[in-house]
Amino acid sequence: MDGIEKVIIEAGGILKEEYGHSLKFSRKGKSGLLSEVDVEIERIIVGQLCVLFPGDGIYSEEAGETKGNTGRRWILDPMDGTTNFIFGIPHFCISLCLERDGKIVEAHVYNPIPGEYYMTKAGERKSFLNGNEIHVSETDRVENALVVFGFSADHENISAYHRDWGKLFDGCGKGLGMLSPALNICNVARGRIDCFLDLGSSMEGHAGAALILKRAGGSVSNYDSTSWDFEKSGVIASNAHLMPVLRGLKNG
Amino acid sequence: MDGIEKVIIEAGGILKEEYGHSLKFSRKGKSGLLSEVDVEIERIIVGQLCVLFPGDGIYSEEAGETKGNTGRRWILDPMDGTTNFIFGIPHFCISLCLERDGKIVEAHVYNPIPGEYYMTKAGERKSFLNGNEIHVSETDRVENALVVFGFSADHENISAYHRDWGKLFDGCGKGLGMLSPALNICNVARGRIDCFLDLGSSMEGHAGAALILKRAGGSVSNYDSTSWDFEKSGVIASNAHLMPVLRGLKNG
Repeated sequence: MDGIEKVIIEAGGILKEEYGHSLKFSRKGKSGLLSEVDVEIERIIVGQLCVLFPGDGIYSEEAGETKGNTGRRWILDPMDGTTNFIFGIPHFCISLCLERDGKIVEAHVYNPIPGEYYMTKAGERKSFLNGNEIHVSETDRVENALVVFGFSADHENISAYHRDWGKLFDGCGKGLGMLSPALNICNVARGRIDCFLDLGSSMEGHAGAALILKRAGGSVSNYDSTSWDFEKSGVIASNAHLMPVLRGLKNG
Repeated sequence: MDGIEKVIIEAGGILKEEYGHSLKFSRKGKSGLLSEVDVEIERIIVGQLCVLFPGDGIYSEEAGETKGNTGRRWILDPMDGTTNFIFGIPHFCISLCLERDGKIVEAHVYNPIPGEYYMTKAGERKSFLNGNEIHVSETDRVENALVVFGFSADHENISAYHRDWGKLFDGCGKGLGMLSPALNICNVARGRIDCFLDLGSSMEGHAGAALILKRAGGSVSNYDSTSWDFEKSGVIASNAHLMPVLRGLKNG
């Protein structure tokens, strides 16, 4: 295990411990505890990145941008899926990836509750879950596809997905609305599900997982089906068979 | 730990192990692997119930009804939240409860992934999570409430919730659509969330968790707001403050 994995696993241990506490007495409004946990995880990982890789830039969800001078930038989401964390759904993770000369080259996505660590390192052409190589599914028909949309119980948001993707929404094998883009994209990479669509996912949530997916044989595009740009908001993540099918399904 | 807890924890260990496997090569359509896991867990628990409590009746989701002669009946859902299991969302559980003379008197709900075991025993007036007493939240205003609706990405189903509960859907603090009624009700009991509504939950999914909720200070009613009957489909599960507020919010 190299330095950065150790840092993520240790931070994940803290996330797991915080999750185990009853939130009853510490929840203040919607964000009270959560921003504390987010900031604690961020502080630990950013601090260690500064020690391990002095001079690298760092972008983190809470702290924003720290410029570097090496052509390298770490992109951190200390907790992707915070709403799930608050609601008692153990589907959230730490996401960290490395950008070099404008391209993501290394990615780490870790959910400490089931102990699932997804990773791909610089120079590799494979992705791994807990050290085992992963591959996308072979599903090639929409009516068999397991599809996740990135929505909570927000009716306007759900209506937007249904307007854009009615044929997929109503015609797929089974669909779920689920938060945590990083983990949902990794579930595509792993072949658990066949595609994931999010109209509003952000760079720190999707950039690392998108690389993991591509190196597991999958495809990724922007939500409007244009070529993948990890700095843009939104994502379509799919196994390789379904991506061209999805393009033909979108309305408008 | 008494006999039945040991049985559930052992069965949970198998569920956890099955979850850890890649499903890529064993998923056949939507139900291939799942029915195998469900049936395996059911077989183990039903077999042990017959040994531990000969003569008791047993109702289980897959195997149906086995009549007894003691006035007691065990109600088992070997896996509540199977869709989450398939989709790689670690929010599923074993639910087992005991009915005596028409009333639920004991309940066990266990999610082996985070290792959360909810329980209330016969004769008790309290509910426990991993041995610690739990209580519902104190939230009394809809605009602060964390609300879960029991929907997947099924547009007709979501529209039905929105038609029935538009003011809650659009006006609550934050809402999620999430499967596994047993765990969602237990999250209300634990004070993680403030209420849970499901228009189609079934007896084996909600009966045990509803007792856990009541003994944690919460309220439960049928989906149509009539008095709780665990044999009916659907549920409203809430902390005590919000239940009367919810009654006034429902349309129709």
